[in-house]
Amino acid sequence: MSAVAGVPPVDVVDASFDAWVRSRLALFEQAAAASLPPGDRVPERLHRAMRYAALGGGKRVRPLLAYAAAELAPGARPGEPGPAVHCVALAVEFVHVYSLIHDDLPCMDDDVLRRGKPTVHVAFDEATAMLAGDALQAEAFRVLADAPLAAELRALLVSMLARAASTSGMCGGQAIDLAAVGCQLTIDELERMHRMKTGALLAASVRMGAAAAGADAAAAAAAEAYGRALGLAFQIVDDVLDVEGTAESLGKTAGKDARENKPTYVSVLGLAAAKARAAQLHREAIAALGPLDGRARRLRELADYIVGRTS
Amino acid sequence: MSAVAGVPPVDVVDASFDAWVRSRLALFEQAAAASLPPGDRVPERLHRAMRYAALGGGKRVRPLLAYAAAELAPGARPGEPGPAVHCVALAVEFVHVYSLIHDDLPCMDDDVLRRGKPTVHVAFDEATAMLAGDALQAEAFRVLADAPLAAELRALLVSMLARAASTSGMCGGQAIDLAAVGCQLTIDELERMHRMKTGALLAASVRMGAAAAGADAAAAAAAEAYGRALGLAFQIVDDVLDVEGTAESLGKTAGKDARENKPTYVSVLGLAAAKARAAQLHREAIAALGPLDGRARRLRELADYIVGRTS
Repeated sequence: MSAVAGVPPVDVVDASFDAWVRSRLALFEQAAAASLPPGDRVPERLHRAMRYAALGGGKRVRPLLAYAAAELAPGARPGEPGPAVHCVALAVEFVHVYSLIHDDLPCMDDDVLRRGKPTVHVAFDEATAMLAGDALQAEAFRVLADAPLAAELRALLVSMLARAASTSGMCGGQAIDLAAVGCQLTIDELERMHRMKTGALLAASVRMGAAAAGADAAAAAAAEAYGRALGLAFQIVDDVLDVEGTAESLGKTAGKDARENKPTYVSVLGLAAAKARAAQLHREAIAALGPLDGRARRLRELADYIVGRTS
Repeated sequence: MSAVAGVPPVDVVDASFDAWVRSRLALFEQAAAASLPPGDRVPERLHRAMRYAALGGGKRVRPLLAYAAAELAPGARPGEPGPAVHCVALAVEFVHVYSLIHDDLPCMDDDVLRRGKPTVHVAFDEATAMLAGDALQAEAFRVLADAPLAAELRALLVSMLARAASTSGMCGGQAIDLAAVGCQLTIDELERMHRMKTGALLAASVRMGAAAAGADAAAAAAAEAYGRALGLAFQIVDDVLDVEGTAESLGKTAGKDARENKPTYVSVLGLAAAKARAAQLHREAIAALGPLDGRARRLRELADYIVGRTS
């Protein structure tokens, strides 16, 4: 059973969704392996750390959102994401991976397990981990700036990603998160933090995927609304799973939020209300896609997957 | 007397250079203060840390190089750097400042003094320092992507900066630097490290300033050669000053390289040969500007300043 009422558990999503995810993950992995500098190029240790962190792990939610959103474009051929869409998928994932590497450092969350393997600073060292994160952020912007797209669009994508990553987005949300340890937050404050910390980059993944593929204004607006709702739902499910999951199922340390006295949707609303809020946001995300018919199929399925996931 | 033979000490550079520097620094400071989020905006602590690090300190060598290179453009009016040139100046300095914040962290150089005041992790805390660096990198790319320039040029500038900042440039050079502690490097290996660690961003500052102002191909090529030579000269002078300077004159800890057993131009070549190499690179930088007559005046003066500086 899914953790969230009204949302099908992942394994009953149309079987072709599973095939779609697998094909996209394979393409993404190939693109990422080709995009990052090889591990035998100087400085080898840094390149190996970047590849260790970025390749072969993770749910790839952000790339999948970008690929799914690209199918909103009128002429998109579902079987073949264009090279520009891969660039968006790489860029958003590189930013996500860099944030995980830095988050896991001793001066932040001090975590030793990520995606089922030792964190970068454990497998390498702290200085290398910091530089690997720094370089992955630069790589994200390089990939976008060099994408095979009209220059206007490349510059727009860089701007979108930079805003999602900076203090009005991810970094800002993390700073609020740090400051919130041991504090009582209102539900509005908590929502704001989550929208910045996780929601901004997830929503940007959707908008950037749609933009790179040439989606029209109506599709872009729908993608925007979908991304905002789903981005928040994702983080609420994360909060729920931190309580209900295990390190084995999550591939990372479970139960951390409570131990670290961090305010979460579960601690502020309670478990049942947190799940209800996730289900409500799931409905909002699906509703936003209403006018888009078959083009939005993969986004709908991803919403089910993201809210219904158990890890 | 200047530390490097054949280069005039800074105080005999044409008095109008001093006025030019002061006017550019004032304009830069204004642009930076306006560009960064205000310190009373949520998350306040993060925004205050970014402003603490980025405003009101430093020699601003990279912005000055960008402003000087912008004067290479045929129609450039020396008194008035356009808004796009300010964007380049901000972007290169934001990347430089983020690298200083991260470099100073305990897991890297563990330094407590920078630009004559406590480092960011001392004045704030380590987590805030890391996030402030991360966010400043994102801001650098945001500023370029939103610059008032043709989209083709904005995308090009983002690509140039990303390459200078990533593993083929700054982050790569830092990784080699880390790995080199306690090692014997050949002069070629040392030069490669310095060209990546410091030279790449300095050279990019020159090229990006020229590009943003619309310099022609001949000027761009001259800027490229000048930037490469001067970028390396800058780091050699840094190595010399680390031996000859004091914390008071430098605004940062002196004598660190030797204590940390880091290979430098001084440890590999000796003090006299290091100075001679800086003087040779200074001549190369000036020679590269040969065909550009009066438009290159500020770049020539900056070369004198950078190589002749005592702090």
